This record gives sequence, C-alpha cells and structure tokens, in this order.
Amino acid sequence: MIIMKTDATEEDIQRVVAEIERNGLRADVSRGDYMTVIGPVGDERRLAFDRLASFPGVREAAMVETPYKLISKAYARFLGEPGAHKRVSIGDIHIGNGEPVIIAGPCAVESKPQLMRIAEEVKAAGAHILRGGVFKPRSSVHSFQGLGASSIESAEEALSWLREAGDKFDMPVVTEVRGESVVELVARYVDIMHIGARNMYDQDLLVEVARQHKPVLLKRHFGASIEELLSFSEYIAAEGNKDIILCERGIVPMGKGKSYTRYTLDIAAVPVIHNETYLPVIVDPSHATGRRDLIFDMSCASIAAGADGLMIESHYDPSEALVDGPQMVTPDELKDIIEACGKLYHLVREH
Amino acid sequence: MIIMKTDATEEDIQRVVAEIERNGLRADVSRGDYMTVIGPVGDERRLAFDRLASFPGVREAAMVETPYKLISKAYARFLGEPGAHKRVSIGDIHIGNGEPVIIAGPCAVESKPQLMRIAEEVKAAGAHILRGGVFKPRSSVHSFQGLGASSIESAEEALSWLREAGDKFDMPVVTEVRGESVVELVARYVDIMHIGARNMYDQDLLVEVARQHKPVLLKRHFGASIEELLSFSEYIAAEGNKDIILCERGIVPMGKGKSYTRYTLDIAAVPVIHNETYLPVIVDPSHATGRRDLIFDMSCASIAAGADGLMIESHYDPSEALVDGPQMVTPDELKDIIEACGKLYHLVREH
Amino acid sequence: MIIMKTDATEEDIQRVVAEIERNGLRADVSRGDYMTVIGPVGDERRLAFDRLASFPGVREAAMVETPYKLISKAYARFLGEPGAHKRVSIGDIHIGNGEPVIIAGPCAVESKPQLMRIAEEVKAAGAHILRGGVFKPRSSVHSFQGLGASSIESAEEALSWLREAGDKFDMPVVTEVRGESVVELVARYVDIMHIGARNMYDQDLLVEVARQHKPVLLKRHFGASIEELLSFSEYIAAEGNKDIILCERGIVPMGKGKSYTRYTLDIAAVPVIHNETYLPVIVDPSHATGRRDLIFDMSCASIAAGADGLMIESHYDPSEALVDGPQMVTPDELKDIIEACGKLYHLVREH
Amino acid sequence: MIIMKTDATEEDIQRVVAEIERNGLRADVSRGDYMTVIGPVGDERRLAFDRLASFPGVREAAMVETPYKLISKAYARFLGEPGAHKRVSIGDIHIGNGEPVIIAGPCAVESKPQLMRIAEEVKAAGAHILRGGVFKPRSSVHSFQGLGASSIESAEEALSWLREAGDKFDMPVVTEVRGESVVELVARYVDIMHIGARNMYDQDLLVEVARQHKPVLLKRHFGASIEELLSFSEYIAAEGNKDIILCERGIVPMGKGKSYTRYTLDIAAVPVIHNETYLPVIVDPSHATGRRDLIFDMSCASIAAGADGLMIESHYDPSEALVDGPQMVTPDELKDIIEACGKLYHLVREH
Repeated sequence: MIIMKTDATEEDIQRVVAEIERNGLRADVSRGDYMTVIGPVGDERRLAFDRLASFPGVREAAMVETPYKLISKAYARFLGEPGAHKRVSIGDIHIGNGEPVIIAGPCAVESKPQLMRIAEEVKAAGAHILRGGVFKPRSSVHSFQGLGASSIESAEEALSWLREAGDKFDMPVVTEVRGESVVELVARYVDIMHIGARNMYDQDLLVEVARQHKPVLLKRHFGASIEELLSFSEYIAAEGNKDIILCERGIVPMGKGKSYTRYTLDIAAVPVIHNETYLPVIVDPSHATGRRDLIFDMSCASIAAGADGLMIESHYDPSEALVDGPQMVTPDELKDIIEACGKLYHLVREH
Repeated sequence: MIIMKTDATEEDIQRVVAEIERNGLRADVSRGDYMTVIGPVGDERRLAFDRLASFPGVREAAMVETPYKLISKAYARFLGEPGAHKRVSIGDIHIGNGEPVIIAGPCAVESKPQLMRIAEEVKAAGAHILRGGVFKPRSSVHSFQGLGASSIESAEEALSWLREAGDKFDMPVVTEVRGESVVELVARYVDIMHIGARNMYDQDLLVEVARQHKPVLLKRHFGASIEELLSFSEYIAAEGNKDIILCERGIVPMGKGKSYTRYTLDIAAVPVIHNETYLPVIVDPSHATGRRDLIFDMSCASIAAGADGLMIESHYDPSEALVDGPQMVTPDELKDIIEACGKLYHLVREH
Repeated sequence: MIIMKTDATEEDIQRVVAEIERNGLRADVSRGDYMTVIGPVGDERRLAFDRLASFPGVREAAMVETPYKLISKAYARFLGEPGAHKRVSIGDIHIGNGEPVIIAGPCAVESKPQLMRIAEEVKAAGAHILRGGVFKPRSSVHSFQGLGASSIESAEEALSWLREAGDKFDMPVVTEVRGESVVELVARYVDIMHIGARNMYDQDLLVEVARQHKPVLLKRHFGASIEELLSFSEYIAAEGNKDIILCERGIVPMGKGKSYTRYTLDIAAVPVIHNETYLPVIVDPSHATGRRDLIFDMSCASIAAGADGLMIESHYDPSEALVDGPQMVTPDELKDIIEACGKLYHLVREH
Repeated sequence: MIIMKTDATEEDIQRVVAEIERNGLRADVSRGDYMTVIGPVGDERRLAFDRLASFPGVREAAMVETPYKLISKAYARFLGEPGAHKRVSIGDIHIGNGEPVIIAGPCAVESKPQLMRIAEEVKAAGAHILRGGVFKPRSSVHSFQGLGASSIESAEEALSWLREAGDKFDMPVVTEVRGESVVELVARYVDIMHIGARNMYDQDLLVEVARQHKPVLLKRHFGASIEELLSFSEYIAAEGNKDIILCERGIVPMGKGKSYTRYTLDIAAVPVIHNETYLPVIVDPSHATGRRDLIFDMSCASIAAGADGLMIESHYDPSEALVDGPQMVTPDELKDIIEACGKLYHLVREH
C-alpha cells in the first residue's frame, strides 16, 4: 500500500501507478479528503517497496499481506478516516453507520399486481428498499427459476415492473443477478446489484458486476468462512467499486439429527466484519432460518449485534408464494419487526 | 404419555406405573396443579396404549415418538400449563420466563483471594449467580486442569471457597462437574451442577448428576445438533429431575480460512429450544467467541433473541488468568453488559 | 418420465414432446437401443401423466420426484441398460466401467516448455489425459490467476499449447473453464470441459458449458452435499449432454484444531454416486489433501472404493511451481501410483 | 522430553523424575532397548530444561510443544525406533505394522446363543478378535441401552458370555466401556477396553480405563479433529499405558440435502495418524456408513490407505438385530471382505 503525501501532485500519483503497472499489477487509487492511497492489485511481492518509498510525493510504502486489503479498516485509516465505517448511499438511503436499513419484498417477482401490492405494503410497513427476485438460483433444474429464466423479454418485463414499483413507492430496488450474460441488463433497471450466496465464489461474475458502478450486495456462501467472504469482496473492490454491502445469511448446519433451521445464522459475523473492514453488513434472517416464526427473534438479535440492516422476504399471502412461502412474513409482521429494531438500534448505540 | 383424569386417585396412578414397569420401562410421574402426567422411559413400542387408555383414572394414553418427550412443550401442555416455560428456582433467583439471569465469575478458581475479589466485584456489577471452575476439562493433558485435579483435598478446599464466596455475597454458586467420581462431592457444595460441553454425550455422568436433585446446567457439545442436546437432556429428566437449564455455547466453525471466533454461536438455538421445550436456555458468549471484544455484542444479541440468561467469564485482570484470559471481561465491562441486557429484555418483551 | 413402446414412431415421440412443451417444460429425449425415454425438464406437477399414458406409443408415464432424474440409475434402467454405468469416451479413452483413467499434468500452465516437458513425462508415466490450468480460480484477487487471466490473446496462446501437447503426446486434454465469456474459446481447444469446485453452484456456467457438446468434468464444491452435486449435474444433463464425469475432491474439514489435510476426502461418495447414477466418478487426491506424501495412499484408497479414475497434479520440479507446489507429485511418483492402482483395480474387481 | 544416555543409571533416572515431580508435573518413563526417555506430563514451561540437561546421565533435554508428545513419532525415534510403528499385542494377535487385524461381531450382545453363533461364524470367516456391545451408548434414553444397562448382574452375565465365546473360539474379546463405575468390571472380562466415539472427550473415563493396564481402543468422536483425537489419546499414554489402538469411524456429514451415509469416513486420517504417531489405527466402516452395501468398498479403501485393521459389525441375520441392523454384514460377506483386504494389504505393501 502506498500512502501519498498531502501535497503529492497528480504527476506523483501517476508515476507510482506506472511503476506498479510496469511490474504486472494493477493500481487502485483512492483519493481521500486529505491524502491519496494507492493499493496494488496482484502479487505485491513483485514490487520493490523500498524503491517506491523514495518516489517523489510518497509518504509511506509497505507490503500488506492479507487477501483483503482494499476493504480493510487499515485502508480506511490511511485515508484519514480512523475507525469510520463507510456509508453506501442510494439517493437519500444510507446503509452503514446509522439507522438500520430494511430491504423487503417477495422472494420472487411473480406478476406485476403481486409486486405492486407487496411494494405498497412493505413501504407502508416502514421498509426502505424493495427486493424481488427475477432470476432465481435453484438447486434443481426442475424448480421454478424465476420469470427471468424463460426469455430475455420476460426478464426485461419483470425488471421493468421492479423499477416501476420502486419509482412509484419511492424505494431503491435490488435484485439478484445470476449469470454474466444478464449483468448489463439488470444494471439498467436496478439500484443495487445483488450477488447471491451460491455465486459468491464466482469471481468472474463479481468482476463483471463491480464494473457496472452500482452498489453491490454480496451474500456469504453457506459453505464459506468469513475470511473467504472478505477475500471475494476484494474482487469487487479491486475493480474500483467500494460500494459493497456484505450480507450474512447462514451457513450449513452441523451435527447429526434434525435441523430446525435451514442454515445456522452466524451473527458474530456482524461485529467481526465491522472489526476487519469499513464495509456495512446486513443480515438475511429469512433464508437463514427458513422459518417465519423465527424472523422476529433473529432480526432483533442481528440489530442488537450491530447489523446495518436486514433483508426480509415479505408477502401479503405467504401460502400463495411460488418460492420460499414458509419463510415470508406478512407486511403486518414486518412492521412490528421494523419498529422493534429501530428502538433496539438506539438502545444499543447508547451503550 | 399417559394423562390422568383430574380426579384420578393415587391408586389409579400406581396401577399405571406398575403396568409400565411390568413391561420393562420406567415411569416418570409429573404432578401438575390440575392433573398428573405419566411418561414412560424406554421403548414405548412395548406398551399397549389401547389397554392403558381403559385403565381407571386415565384420560388419555398415546405414544409419543420423539427422543425428547419429558422435556417437551407437549408435556407441559398436558400438565395444564399451555405455552408456559418452566422457571428453575434457586432461592429467590429464577431462571426462565422473566428477567435475564447473569452467571459470572472466573473461568477457573485459582486462589481464595482471587475468587473472593471477583465474587465481590461481579456481584456489584449486577451478576446473580457465581461461577468458578474447580475441575477444568482440557484438550491437553499437559494443560492446567483446575485446582480440583491435584487431589480430593484441594478439590474440596476450592469448592469450599466457592461456597463461602456465594454465601458471603449472597449468590447461588455453580461449578462444572467432570467425572462421575466427584459428583457427590460437588453436590455437597454447589447450588447448580454444571455439565460442560465436552461431557454432554456422557450419559452416565448425566444420570449421576441428575440424581443429586439439584438444578443441572447442561451445555451443548460443539459438535452436537440441537436435537442431540435435547435428547441428552432427556436423560436428566428421565431421572425425575426437570430442573434443567440448557446452554448454547457455540459449535465448531465451518469453512476454509481464518477463524475469527473460537466457535460459531448458534443464537437461533434459543428460540428453537423455547419452541420445542419448556426449559430455560441461556447463552455463554465467552466460550463461544473466545474474544473479549465481542462479548457485549453477542450478549445483546442473545437477550434480543430471547435467552433467559447469560454465563460470562469475568476477572479483575484478564491478562493474569491461568485459563481463557483473552475472553474474560472486567467487572466494569460486565456491568455495562448487564445494564444493556436488562433494558433490551424489556424492550423486546413489549413487542 | 415417459417410456415409449419399442415400436413407437417418431411422430408418437414428437406428440409427447409437444404436450410437455405446451405445459411450459422442456423435454429430454434419450434414444436407447430398444426404446426411447422422454424426461421432462421442469416442474413435473404441471403434467397430466394419466393423460400422457394414454398417448399412442407410450408404454408408461410416471412422475419422478427427485432433483436428479436424467442422470439416475432408474433412467438408465428404462433405457434397457440395467445396472450399467455409462462410459464417457474421448477417442479411444473410456472413462467409466473399466480400467481407471488417469488425468495428470501441472496445476497451472506456466510456459510452453514447462507444459511440453510435463506432458511428455506424465505420458511416459502412464497417464491417459493431460490437464493444465489456464484460468485459475483463486480465493485472493492478489494471487496468480493463470496465464489466461491477463488477456484473451495469452489465454488463446496457452490453450493452443495445451492442444499441441495433447496432440504431440497423444492425450486428450482438459482444462478448467472459469467464466461464461470464455466457454466457447475453451471449447475450441480442449476435449473435456472442466468446471471447478468453486463454480459447481454456477448454474448458468453449467448450462453454457453443457451446450458445447463436449464431455464435462464437474467437481463437487467443498461445501456441497452429494445430493447437491447430483442436482447440479442435472443442469448439464437437461441440456441433452449426458457425457458427465463427476469428481470428488474433498469437503471442508470439521472440528477444532490443526487441519492436517486441506480438505476431507469423502471417498464413500464414489460408491454412493455409482449407486445413484450411471455416471463415472473420479477422485482428485491432490486438491483434497494438499500433501504430496498422501497422494499415493489416497489414490489407492479411491481406486479400491471403485473410482473410475484419478486427477493428479504432477510437475517435474514441484518446488518451482507457481501454484500448489506442495501437492504435486513427480512423474516418477506418478508412475508408481498408476501401476499400483492398475493392479488394485483388477484385484478389487475380481471380488 | 529428557533423553538419557545409554549408560545412565537408575539413580540418574530417578533424579530426573524427582526434579520433574518437584515442579508439580508427573513423569512418564519409557525404557527402550538402548536408552530411556522421560516425558513430563503437565505444563513443561515450569521446567528448567537447561538445568535438567546438566544432570548426570542426561543426553538431551528439550521442551516439546505439542498436545501429544508421548504418542508421537518423535518419542519413538528417541527410543531408538526410527520410523517404527508400535504393535499392540494380545496373545499372538498383533495390531499394527503387519497384516490387517479384523475385529468382528454383533453390535450388541443380545443373548448367549446369538453371541455364540456369531462368534463361531465370524471366526470361520477369518476374523481375529470378537466384539460385542454390552453397554450401548445411545442418543435417546428411550432406546435399548444394551443388556448391561439393566443391572450389574445382567452386565456381568453378558460379559461372561463374551469371555466364554472368545475362549471357545480362540479370539481375544473387546467391548465398549461406558461410565467410570463399570471400568473395573469390564476389565475383568475383556482383553481390549473400547472407548466409544461419544466418550472420546471424557478424560476421566480415559484415565480410569488406562489404569487397567489393558490395550485401549479409542474411537474418534464424530465432531473431533484428528488433533483432538491425538490429544485425548495422550491422556491414556500419560498414565503409562501406550497400548493404544486408534479408530476412525466417520465425522458428521457436511452440507445441505440428503445424507447418503450416516457419517463421512475420513480415510486420510489413517496415513495422517501414521505420520504423526507410532500408534496403530483401524477403521470402522459399519458405523461410518450405516450401510451394509458400502462396507466392502470402504473396507478395501481403508486397507489400501494403510489401515492396520477393521472393526466390522456382523450378524447371521441383520434384519433381526436389536441395534444397527442396516449396517451389519453376514459372515459370508465378512469372509469376502477379509479375503479381499488380505490381498490388498500385500499388493499395497509391495509398492
């Protein structure tokens, strides 16, 4: 990592970038209010940091040996923001370092009326951002794959409903992008690009999504350690896109015998990630538990542990949903969760 | 399970018990305020429930096929306590169905002055019950095994300090019992018998401890499913001892790469166990995380999810502790946690 | 699944296909020597099997409720091949139902001379198929990503070396395809398309690869159950491509404490998959253990359990390799493994 | 670890022992053919190795920082047995460093005729040691707990049948000991004391069993890492009992979806343990898979990986067994397995 002096010139910066690129690495340039930090992307052992330290305008040059450095707390500190957590902003909605942000909506977009009704109801319940799946990743090729799966036309139609619902009820919208070929299409319609748990390890998709210059919501794979989640989010940051929202959604349950929840929600991931990076982290209690009756408790627990937001599936009639009915809450239940979490946030922050 | 009529006589009850025993099973008799429930212990397929249903005084007789029935919600319901959760009481301290109860103290008892000072300070911080390890289960035979390991005399001495500290500062005391041979010794000195995570599967120890007629604190093994925890606590209940406090303390972490916490705290276990049984459930954030800086967040999360209490290791000088220093909080930090959790409890209960 | 009569006409078949498609599903038509089986792809609950059973030329029509049916033993049985395992053939190399096939080569293609020398040496050692990574999936964006990562030109160059080495030493070649955008490029140069463990859940990549009409080698994700591996290989089969080779390569290790191997090799997956499907299954002991000194033992164990082949990383100088040096065996060690496994195969098959 | 000179006197040895004990540790004294090694049991940081090195008769004194040193390869090497693996001998049966030893018999002893018939048949099939459970550890208090559970008399009767069967058919016998209170009773009747997977963490039981001066068969807990298995077997060695046979029997399966085997057999544990210690290691494919149809394949795989033996449950009529019927093989199947494994052993050893 190369930290430039406060009075370093653009020419000084470009000289460092050129030296990094000459050695086969890329350079990530972050311009803070007071100084500029340059993070090499690639194998830093190829760089002569001693030599770089003597370049004009360079204050400090040192190798950082962790698989995630562009998203690390250390990086933020160099930028003159000690301890600060980043806020990812979409219009006047800010995720991170403030009141919990609630993303709600149906698991899958099923029809325009279904989506419009849910959008209206979750907005009324207090949700800030609208979610709705157009491309559903599924374990079985024989399951419903989302409206987007049948054709580009129907994908685009479903995406346009999402956009329309967001505009009508004044909520940014987020949807999962599945497959590199639809990345640009999705980017045209949504405010936040969501990469699902199953695709966390798909570095090519991560890079392609990062390049759309929109906030990215990255979910932890259910077989991934926290270190892996952070290492893979570094692929997004290395494209110059630091608007990353991480999401804990449960890991595969362990042990013999009946599993009472679909996954094991690792709530400690929230403070751990806050400790390691400057990124906001939210929790998805719906997929983690798969049980409507546990959403309230797990939402409260997540906010109490410091989560910056929640992603909750909601439907006016869960029994009617094509996908994941048993884990959706009604808008009334959602309202109760949002109220409790708001109060919890303030109570915990006071301590 | 056999539910007796409200006006069933003692003779009616004994007739049912005799019939169960005649078939090679044992009978657990629970006398509620309104009626009595008899739970057969053993393979229920050997019983003719049809025949039992026609016995005098019997209202209902039906086979229950789950590995835990004596601790199940259904059992409580039959006793005329629908939805009720049991309160395990030690004097005027009640665990379950009320304000969170805080168990605090050092990981290991190291000396009388150390214990007395910690007892005084955790009491002042708001703790309700005093903990202190005399017999420490350790992964390595080469590690400190607790004062109790060197001789019976030193074990008894350490136990007597614990008793004295509890009496002096008006707190019930709990310590881990490790090995069948010391069960009776430990029972003479403490109010709650604690069975550690490593011994959860040790059914012979469970039975021996259950027979001391004292409340039992049973921790979930780090490789056990919730179903296994419940199945093994049934061994205690089957001895007629229903004063069981369950404790979630983290399961082995999953995935490749660095582990930021010692274990993965499965907070959803709290509402799941509340849903399945009438037993109180507490959380041990100290062993789960192994990190002092995460205790506050994980304590709040646990209480927000409905935990009936917390078990937190505390020491006036964590750096000086012989065992588990990095995960102990100071009495000041403990005070802060207890206050926040008290407020959280009330906030969440209102919803 | 719809089984046609032996004398069903093409018209009969097309009538069934049309009916399936009319209901929004796709149809997989498999023509065996004696009869034709039609497998609907999608939600079978939408089909009226009663009605289909009465169509001309239909012998039997029944719903199959498993996430993998096109690759199942049952499907093979309907095709008149009871108990038979498929052989995936590339020229005169046959994988499945016969002598173990050995895939060997360097982890990553590093240069033309490196590849040519290794190809010559592994061929001499007895290997049948040449492997070499051009696109390396890596946990860290800062690690070497393979020659293919820098540009399309260098990717194509490395692929051409692989083709040339395969042609020169008379071995089919296999390489990992990472990212949908390079699927067609890779398909132009290799004989077997390899989908790595990290991408097993990437259904869009699976579909794109399946459409190249080349054999596909699919590795089990290190966080996936066997059922998931089979469910995702069904995505390939549903594209009409049944030339699928499955590969067990270890799952994330469990438990506290030091991990002596990188992953836990689940050798029982071999007979389990042979029991569930007609597909060949091979084992990769190199990635599973990450330890050169365990490759011999784990190779023998895999073949003894019935594996149809092995994928082993080999390098003339493991210490010099850019990626995964500690797990590569020398060509001499490879020769010893191949000889032992050949004998083992015959010994076990005689029983 | 303190290595004595070849000509060290008994007095020299006792002086070192006294010094170790003076510091609060115990001393494990191993007398090899050429020299004596003294292993301190306890926290070695309390010892002044510099000082010990200057004691008369001491050749070398150094701290070993691993949780298992008394069972380590290094320890054997100091004893002048480089690379050697220990053979645990019971009469003329030797486990380790030679032909695979087969332990077979019913899961549970159900009656004398059942046991006698099985003993005769497994002996005829080629088994070397007879197994039979008298005390069954069970997840549910409502399941059959073995004949030993009802009373001491019935336990002793069942144990006497086992002894009688072993004597009649000339096989050493092994049974699981569950609970410290029956350790001495069991030791009076059997040749090998078996500690089951569920009790691996029960250090008090391990110590008690070790003190019976009989070979101990210790199974890996299904939630334990290899390092934990080794650390806990050190508890046995620290009692001066090095006749330890380790047993891999599967760890809890990982991942979502259907589990085709009860546990995941970690066959790589065999060469790993051979690499770390001088102890023999066997495999139990019966409990690992829970499936009769996989026993042959997994037995072959284990022996191919270097296992020193197998523990296989066998019954003349598996469908009739009270416990674990689905995983038992018939004596005929057992014969086939033993024959194949014998040949495999020789084939692999030649390489």
